Amino acid sequence: MNYKMIGKFIGRIMLIEAAFLLPACGISIFQGEKEAVQAFAITIFVSAAVGGLLTKRNRGTKKGFHAREGLVCVGISWIVLGLTGALPFFLSGAIPNYVDALFETVSGFTTTGASILPEVEPLPMGMLYWRSFSHWLGGMGVLVFLLAVSSGDERSKGFTMHILRAESPGPKVGKLVPRMKQTAEILYLLYIMLTVLNIVFLLIGKMPLFDAVCTAFGTAGTGGFGIKNDSIAGYSPYLQNVCTVFMLLFGVNFSCYYMLMLRQVKSVFKDEELRLYIGAVVGSTALIALNLRGMYDTVGETIRHAAFQVASIVTTTGFATTDFDLWPTFSKTILVCLMMLGACAGSTGGGFKCGRALLVFKGLRRSVREIVHPGRVEVVRVNGRPMEEKVLANTNAYLAAYALIIVFSFFAISVDGFSVTTNLTAVLSCFNNIGPGLEAVGPTCNFGDFSIFSKLVLILDMLAGRLEIFPILILFSRTTWGRR
Amino acid sequence: MNYKMIGKFIGRIMLIEAAFLLPACGISIFQGEKEAVQAFAITIFVSAAVGGLLTKRNRGTKKGFHAREGLVCVGISWIVLGLTGALPFFLSGAIPNYVDALFETVSGFTTTGASILPEVEPLPMGMLYWRSFSHWLGGMGVLVFLLAVSSGDERSKGFTMHILRAESPGPKVGKLVPRMKQTAEILYLLYIMLTVLNIVFLLIGKMPLFDAVCTAFGTAGTGGFGIKNDSIAGYSPYLQNVCTVFMLLFGVNFSCYYMLMLRQVKSVFKDEELRLYIGAVVGSTALIALNLRGMYDTVGETIRHAAFQVASIVTTTGFATTDFDLWPTFSKTILVCLMMLGACAGSTGGGFKCGRALLVFKGLRRSVREIVHPGRVEVVRVNGRPMEEKVLANTNAYLAAYALIIVFSFFAISVDGFSVTTNLTAVLSCFNNIGPGLEAVGPTCNFGDFSIFSKLVLILDMLAGRLEIFPILILFSRTTWGRR
Repeated sequence: MNYKMIGKFIGRIMLIEAAFLLPACGISIFQGEKEAVQAFAITIFVSAAVGGLLTKRNRGTKKGFHAREGLVCVGISWIVLGLTGALPFFLSGAIPNYVDALFETVSGFTTTGASILPEVEPLPMGMLYWRSFSHWLGGMGVLVFLLAVSSGDERSKGFTMHILRAESPGPKVGKLVPRMKQTAEILYLLYIMLTVLNIVFLLIGKMPLFDAVCTAFGTAGTGGFGIKNDSIAGYSPYLQNVCTVFMLLFGVNFSCYYMLMLRQVKSVFKDEELRLYIGAVVGSTALIALNLRGMYDTVGETIRHAAFQVASIVTTTGFATTDFDLWPTFSKTILVCLMMLGACAGSTGGGFKCGRALLVFKGLRRSVREIVHPGRVEVVRVNGRPMEEKVLANTNAYLAAYALIIVFSFFAISVDGFSVTTNLTAVLSCFNNIGPGLEAVGPTCNFGDFSIFSKLVLILDMLAGRLEIFPILILFSRTTWGRR
Repeated sequence: MNYKMIGKFIGRIMLIEAAFLLPACGISIFQGEKEAVQAFAITIFVSAAVGGLLTKRNRGTKKGFHAREGLVCVGISWIVLGLTGALPFFLSGAIPNYVDALFETVSGFTTTGASILPEVEPLPMGMLYWRSFSHWLGGMGVLVFLLAVSSGDERSKGFTMHILRAESPGPKVGKLVPRMKQTAEILYLLYIMLTVLNIVFLLIGKMPLFDAVCTAFGTAGTGGFGIKNDSIAGYSPYLQNVCTVFMLLFGVNFSCYYMLMLRQVKSVFKDEELRLYIGAVVGSTALIALNLRGMYDTVGETIRHAAFQVASIVTTTGFATTDFDLWPTFSKTILVCLMMLGACAGSTGGGFKCGRALLVFKGLRRSVREIVHPGRVEVVRVNGRPMEEKVLANTNAYLAAYALIIVFSFFAISVDGFSVTTNLTAVLSCFNNIGPGLEAVGPTCNFGDFSIFSKLVLILDMLAGRLEIFPILILFSRTTWGRR
């Protein structure tokens, strides 16, 4: 294991985090939030100092690096991001328990949006900004950001490839352009453009600037932290609809936008994953709206709530305009199924991902055909292109890991004695990076009542979900730390 | 598709079913249950007539048969068994709705034990016997029985292989001896011996003969239909413990017993699947007993209930000695996890099966290692022997099918508006062939309140679970019915 390389990398992550904390600190200074300013200042100082030290100490390593170093870096980086990012909440007394603060921060970076706070409005504005900003950072990936701004020299090419592969969501890393650094740049450019567009549309609807920026951060990262106690429910129908549209836009594979920029419109709309995603959204909205008829005053309002909640859950954002825990079981069940489906690969959304679901389904169909016609050999195709057998096998392995983690976590947190539905949806919600679940973790409730043990389990679930399981599994595997 | 072959086969199944109905009819005659006798007589006549006609009409086919014919035969046979076996309940008026009667019968043959009846004690004894006997038949497989008693000529060798492969539970068909017919004979011999032993132990505890036979049928098939409203709760602790032990025995891979007969004791106790199974039983019992402390009068009673319920659920039997829906969430969650784990492959139990869980886990561990050390090639071993990659791939495909069916069924039956926990455990319980679930389908409740649509979904789940998914999937696949 190339510890020097890892140390240097973690150091750089901490330096970046210190820089990222500056705007939140600035807002607290501007608002005269004394304790918050202090907490931010200490965190920035510690993070920068430790980061600087780690970077300096581990300079000039000549040993090689391999896939495992890349994966370990990603796993540790995200844990360090959480541990450091939790300090402002803890030091300022906004969240007196450190594990709670860690839960909140990891929930932010992993774009989960599950909160332990019963109310968010009493938080200092700097803290609210930091919560929402962590969504934005986590959405596209802090490490991808590092790639975008790094020097991109020849030597680190292999390393950055491993990082991007580990941090980017989806069954296959889509290299938009041959050079990794450039891919990261394009992704961030698209991300910034869409976020700005989102802010503009919110401002047109007369949302205050601070609200608009924070809401856009939560939408762009498909996070779901709101800055109001009632999430998005208090905003106008227009603003809610803007959120619905932008949540859905951020759930689309970013390579689709890149292809649109290259005017390959046809191939975008022929994309099977995108079609499944749109089909799931439209179908679920229609079914829920039908199921809810009579619950709201007008048909328009019913469709608005249905579409908003479907968009919020399928993209794994987690905003709410209404307490969907009060909806009939059929509607709730659709939402639970969407929790698992998740958004498109290569988007900022979480979940199992539409692309993987497509592969699993096609692989299964092939299995049936092969049983019926034993001799026949068939290739699974997506968008007309044959898929490598390795990708199919990896997808099934991913499903196995996905299912095992859900079962183990569901079992582990049951020690707290909450209901079966609460525990199941808490795990699904955290692991798929959504936010709210049902019953005791419904949209009007929070995760504060879970025990420390369960919170730690859910923190690991959030990390495993965001990093697509393996970088976290690998941290706990003996083989990773052994000698070659 | 060789329709003649299929027709002949279905005909023979119907003839056998007519014969199997005779003892139940005899009991009803002996007890003077007029309506039941009539219903049995009509069913036997119809079944024998149609069966005879089908067999005669389709004699002497010369076309070949392939895997798909075998699978289709299995799927259709089980549906026919259900459709015909439901007639006595329906015709006698014991279950006035035919879909309900079908649910009850399929639940019997698939060894599920889920009932739509609020009380079973008012049923005629012949009906009670038929319900329990269907468990016994379904446990080892009606088609395996057919193999055991069939002529076993050279010509049908390929065909019987396909049948056994499709009907036998487990990831790999364990051929005990080279000849299929002999394997089927050995399996049935072991099955009968263990059942008789079970009856003897129950009789020693002063259980009435009728009760003992029916209870042993339910235990042997890992079915779970009781002949008392309170399942096994009213019997003495000794009798409950006998049930616990025999449920566990019937959850063991039958090839272990064959190996014991051949005095290969060492290799039996080194069997990794058996170890996982025993570990799961002992661990779960200990955790539940700890969790339940204080709920029952003595430690002994607590352990008895815990062990009974663990054995009942992990073997997918479904008997109950107490209302475990009133247990704390932690204990209930353990039971839900055991519902999915299931018993050993090659036993009469259902569920995902310990052997498959082992393969999935080992495959996943290998995936992690391969990611950490990309170049390295590793073979997954079970009991020291390397597993074929094809078996691993099939196991993962099975998991995919397993997960998809659970999600789809969970979604489908949610239209009835029961709670999320009810729907989830109803699906898990039917699909894994267990019987009771939680909340509205808990051990003191029944499946009667579900809609016709949901009952049909659950019937398909029971069949898919018992036949290990693919024979049922294949019935609904276009490719099966197309030309080669």
